[in-house]
Amino acid sequence: MYGSSIGNCFRITTWGESHGPALGVVLDGVPAGLSLTEADFVPYMQRRKPGQSRFTTARAESDTVEILSGVFEGKTTGTPLSLLIRNQDHHSADYSNIADTFRPGHADLNFTAKYGFRDYRGGGRSSGRETSARVAAGAVAEKILREVGIAVSAYTLAIGPYRLNPSELHLEQTYDNALYMPNQDIALKASAFLEECMKTGDSAGGIIECRVDGLPAGIGDPVFEKLDANLGKALFSIGAVKGVEIGDGFSAACVNGSENNDPYIISDGHVTKSSNHSGGITGGMSDGSPLILRAAIKPTPSISMEQDTVTKDKAPHKLQIKGRHDPVIVPRAVVVVEAMTAITVLDAYLGNMSSRMDHLTAFQEHLKHTSF
Amino acid sequence: MYGSSIGNCFRITTWGESHGPALGVVLDGVPAGLSLTEADFVPYMQRRKPGQSRFTTARAESDTVEILSGVFEGKTTGTPLSLLIRNQDHHSADYSNIADTFRPGHADLNFTAKYGFRDYRGGGRSSGRETSARVAAGAVAEKILREVGIAVSAYTLAIGPYRLNPSELHLEQTYDNALYMPNQDIALKASAFLEECMKTGDSAGGIIECRVDGLPAGIGDPVFEKLDANLGKALFSIGAVKGVEIGDGFSAACVNGSENNDPYIISDGHVTKSSNHSGGITGGMSDGSPLILRAAIKPTPSISMEQDTVTKDKAPHKLQIKGRHDPVIVPRAVVVVEAMTAITVLDAYLGNMSSRMDHLTAFQEHLKHTSF
Amino acid sequence: MYGSSIGNCFRITTWGESHGPALGVVLDGVPAGLSLTEADFVPYMQRRKPGQSRFTTARAESDTVEILSGVFEGKTTGTPLSLLIRNQDHHSADYSNIADTFRPGHADLNFTAKYGFRDYRGGGRSSGRETSARVAAGAVAEKILREVGIAVSAYTLAIGPYRLNPSELHLEQTYDNALYMPNQDIALKASAFLEECMKTGDSAGGIIECRVDGLPAGIGDPVFEKLDANLGKALFSIGAVKGVEIGDGFSAACVNGSENNDPYIISDGHVTKSSNHSGGITGGMSDGSPLILRAAIKPTPSISMEQDTVTKDKAPHKLQIKGRHDPVIVPRAVVVVEAMTAITVLDAYLGNMSSRMDHLTAFQEHLKHTSF
Amino acid sequence: MYGSSIGNCFRITTWGESHGPALGVVLDGVPAGLSLTEADFVPYMQRRKPGQSRFTTARAESDTVEILSGVFEGKTTGTPLSLLIRNQDHHSADYSNIADTFRPGHADLNFTAKYGFRDYRGGGRSSGRETSARVAAGAVAEKILREVGIAVSAYTLAIGPYRLNPSELHLEQTYDNALYMPNQDIALKASAFLEECMKTGDSAGGIIECRVDGLPAGIGDPVFEKLDANLGKALFSIGAVKGVEIGDGFSAACVNGSENNDPYIISDGHVTKSSNHSGGITGGMSDGSPLILRAAIKPTPSISMEQDTVTKDKAPHKLQIKGRHDPVIVPRAVVVVEAMTAITVLDAYLGNMSSRMDHLTAFQEHLKHTSF
Repeated sequence: MYGSSIGNCFRITTWGESHGPALGVVLDGVPAGLSLTEADFVPYMQRRKPGQSRFTTARAESDTVEILSGVFEGKTTGTPLSLLIRNQDHHSADYSNIADTFRPGHADLNFTAKYGFRDYRGGGRSSGRETSARVAAGAVAEKILREVGIAVSAYTLAIGPYRLNPSELHLEQTYDNALYMPNQDIALKASAFLEECMKTGDSAGGIIECRVDGLPAGIGDPVFEKLDANLGKALFSIGAVKGVEIGDGFSAACVNGSENNDPYIISDGHVTKSSNHSGGITGGMSDGSPLILRAAIKPTPSISMEQDTVTKDKAPHKLQIKGRHDPVIVPRAVVVVEAMTAITVLDAYLGNMSSRMDHLTAFQEHLKHTSF
Repeated sequence: MYGSSIGNCFRITTWGESHGPALGVVLDGVPAGLSLTEADFVPYMQRRKPGQSRFTTARAESDTVEILSGVFEGKTTGTPLSLLIRNQDHHSADYSNIADTFRPGHADLNFTAKYGFRDYRGGGRSSGRETSARVAAGAVAEKILREVGIAVSAYTLAIGPYRLNPSELHLEQTYDNALYMPNQDIALKASAFLEECMKTGDSAGGIIECRVDGLPAGIGDPVFEKLDANLGKALFSIGAVKGVEIGDGFSAACVNGSENNDPYIISDGHVTKSSNHSGGITGGMSDGSPLILRAAIKPTPSISMEQDTVTKDKAPHKLQIKGRHDPVIVPRAVVVVEAMTAITVLDAYLGNMSSRMDHLTAFQEHLKHTSF
Repeated sequence: MYGSSIGNCFRITTWGESHGPALGVVLDGVPAGLSLTEADFVPYMQRRKPGQSRFTTARAESDTVEILSGVFEGKTTGTPLSLLIRNQDHHSADYSNIADTFRPGHADLNFTAKYGFRDYRGGGRSSGRETSARVAAGAVAEKILREVGIAVSAYTLAIGPYRLNPSELHLEQTYDNALYMPNQDIALKASAFLEECMKTGDSAGGIIECRVDGLPAGIGDPVFEKLDANLGKALFSIGAVKGVEIGDGFSAACVNGSENNDPYIISDGHVTKSSNHSGGITGGMSDGSPLILRAAIKPTPSISMEQDTVTKDKAPHKLQIKGRHDPVIVPRAVVVVEAMTAITVLDAYLGNMSSRMDHLTAFQEHLKHTSF
Repeated sequence: MYGSSIGNCFRITTWGESHGPALGVVLDGVPAGLSLTEADFVPYMQRRKPGQSRFTTARAESDTVEILSGVFEGKTTGTPLSLLIRNQDHHSADYSNIADTFRPGHADLNFTAKYGFRDYRGGGRSSGRETSARVAAGAVAEKILREVGIAVSAYTLAIGPYRLNPSELHLEQTYDNALYMPNQDIALKASAFLEECMKTGDSAGGIIECRVDGLPAGIGDPVFEKLDANLGKALFSIGAVKGVEIGDGFSAACVNGSENNDPYIISDGHVTKSSNHSGGITGGMSDGSPLILRAAIKPTPSISMEQDTVTKDKAPHKLQIKGRHDPVIVPRAVVVVEAMTAITVLDAYLGNMSSRMDHLTAFQEHLKHTSF
């Protein structure tokens, strides 16, 4: 089965392993005429790049995106964009000691059960490095969305036990710290907590929140292609995600309907909601309020503390993982959550273009002005 | 775009509105040779049927499943199963007062924004009644899974503030109460709480947990078709779901890696894990432990208390919803969660059949014994 | 695998067997706001209905299409259309003598090899009766296409050895004879030829041609989703089709490039071609000229002459097929070719709506006028 | 829409333009454990490579395939194979004179109509060079098929008016001439004919035939995913194909059923057919006989004779195409037809693995022997 593609109208296909020569992504369904150069990828790749702070692996990767196809004279042509990211600093030797052992919290056993063997170098296809291709694709999706007035932004909501409550969110501070946490004070405390984790050879998790502004109402579909269903899939497709919430999420399960329903009001002549418990989606379609979603990230499974495990020959084994690992992957995953959200929202937006007969007749009119 | 289908190898397509003549589902990719009669659907449909307790709408529907195609002499033929469920007791007149108004917590505005107008009778396509088709499909998926030793079971974990902790789970009590809550004592308290909600015209939400036993390791895919990604999509595709967790879910975000990693051990000559924080999935593939997932269900949006809203002509409106509504949909959604889980797991299981060259050569051998 | 669906943006899923209670089709991706009633299907179903002439089976079917979902107050809602066609006059007993025998020219052996057994009544899922669901879907596709100025029309080009050359085509005569052959004189000769076939218990084949007028240039895709590739698939998915041509087809293989290339000229201020050897498609995309395609239909395999075959227990068998069969299926397949062409062209048309950034920005503008 | 992918269980996605830095293909659904090195691609790429004879463009391309992912220690891992082919000898300057002109027989106008502009260098995405990626993918598909006993082979059946009849087919001579025509004598005459074409600056077309041996009966699907429907799509997706036939193809339209039906007989204890008019497929599924299919290839549209056309500003223009072009593309397209056939047959074969409950239970047994 094909498992490395996602999306219907806007579809991305990623490929590549942590320690192969390169990783990449093919984007199909990119509308023609978008200005795009390799510089557009830099700020996004920068946010995911290793080595940016003391909380990320020291692996040195330039993470430059090369455009191999789909752009002509600075504009997308409408044909597939092929993006390539070379692997440079892969120390495969570091992994030889885990070739025959199943690392706890990793997919080693599952890979071996499914495929009969596995590329054990750096996690192979399961490596977080695969997400660099998603970030490159997300940069394109975000650029297209901005052209129609839609903005996507993600940030760290929690690191371990340090979680921001809504009144503590100061989005303008997001890029002021290496944790991408929109609150300098709490980011400082979370950093201290991470330092402690590192000292003991342990790791931490956290929560990422993402919001989408400017999305018109009615985007998404009422049944299986619900916008929230596809966002759920997109976020759970990120390796370490163990939970996803839309709007109030699990809290909504404990309150009454009278409290959870968002009343509609008129504001500035437009219909809007006076609260946003829904997180901007009801019945699978956007409701005109900002989209709010959260992903729970488990602690990095690679820890340097000794762990109990077994070998592939079913012998008990005391494992001590060497190599370079992030004590927390949350900060680097922020842009991945943003990318997957943008990809999903764009796909739904494009899918809406053929939802109504009056859209078709307007398109037919529009075509007449562009034909020969 | 097509939004009413889900699945790759095993694909279902639902259709129908709350107040049309019927609803149904087409199942494609059903393996040939499965014994199947209309009686197989009864226990599943019974669990979702309205009118089973004082907590469910009084709408009277027999919810009988008719097999229109795909079965010959009591066995599936391998061609599409078409299942039909007639609507019998639809009081469309009840809804005329909401034709021009957007009900808070419902998709009315979103539908109108997307399609230009909407079938307002009983929620139309957005009605919970659509899930009856999913339950019918789930009955088939569960029957196939049982043939290969895989069992799926869901139950109510929480109603409003009443949540079972792991030590309070007594799965054998699940069917002893109308809430499908595997703890008689707490179910009693939750029932009393719901009675209070009903008195005030309010509603409640809750949490449903689902587990899958007998799933071999290695089912699912490492990137976008991750088993948890597809489960996330499947559960979020159920109307009222606002959050989904796998294993420890959001709790995993707060603990350290040394606590969250599940050690591998040898037990009875097989590799297993001594804990199951992962909920049976790591890296998108099953790990041989039971699958554990949870869905947060928001409180029923239809409440009889007066609510602020607006009309489609942008006039403020005080809305009092009439008609018959469940004060809580959690109990009836239990079998829907189970169905969507079964459909997703089966799809992943079938997808695995072509994952290895030795599977192909074994199949080629097997074919020789069945050819002419 | 799911094999009963076709299309991306506009997707149909058919179900049903020749001798089950009913057949049907679910259409997903139907734009909202199209006027549609059951009467819209009548002229299309009439053209495929059995018993219309002495060249078609005497099976009496009203072939009435019931709309089970997706229409509200006379307009499509944008949610799945479910269409049902009941089977009425099925004489299953007629087929008991072929239950254990593989009929030459039929899929009996193939079905049994694939699924282990088969529904032998009337060909089961392989029956031409499955195409009634396609015709119903085609009626919807053609109605949508007409709203944007695109017309699809098919006719019989050849019956056995009687083939019309381009100068003999008089499209206005298509409906003047039971063969749907746009030339009364040759239709008369072809009818006499068919009478001879019937006398000897034999059958005949033929060729169907289809044209699409009003299609703008640029519809389709340059690589695998080429418009001609999807038309090829759509036509080969009709049971008896053994060959498909676009434009000059196989003749193009014998001529030189200087003869086959269509020169561009200016006519009435528009770019057009002075010839149409391409049949309206080059490089997978429409070129603004009428689409021309042809399907070769093999002779009906069910003949009453004695044939050599074997039983499923591998015993030689002299087979004489009873039951009611068309001596030629070409006339009834004309509307099926037209339907599959319309479905494919509409799907490609909708897919084009998101192909350019200026389409997106025009859509964004258009949305603003329809929002709340 | 995504248009550069094909296949369900085995899916390929191509990307790249004629004059970009590289072309490539991502293969998803490749079973794990297949031995694969870059040497496996050489014989296939060699057959499509330019510059092999005086009938092919002088463009010098090494057409080396680089494996960027999906192989570890010489075996496929089950994760996506990414294959890269660099462009080396692209003389983009040659094309500047056609930037503003629509070449007859090419997709220039269609591209511009669809996307608003086009990469005019060497045909961009519409270039025949795109097929090099397909050939690389086909090499993998053929290797997998051989492991289960299935062989695919294509050859030139006709060049212009020189067409081999069945008695003239000597498959062992296929590789003895630059035309891949399995008859040395007629290949000589066809070569002389091509020399004449070249002298006048004209071009020729032809017909390619492909056969598949060893395919068991029952592969394919009865409705839209018919094996012949997908083969039709696959072949029509090759740029210059204007017609496709299965078995007797268009000839079947002229004969009677008694002649066209293939009788079943017993041979060596197995059921087989005494003739193969069907070309190995009936009702969308293989019948155990060799698959026979044919594609009609139009003459190369790039000719050096002067042609009438228009500019994109709607001015009449006399066009003389420069640059390097094949006078006939048939010989180089032979391996492309073979590749697309192999890809399609493999996809159908894998799809069959989950068609029966007894396949599932056999797989479940097989899994037990490979688990931990």
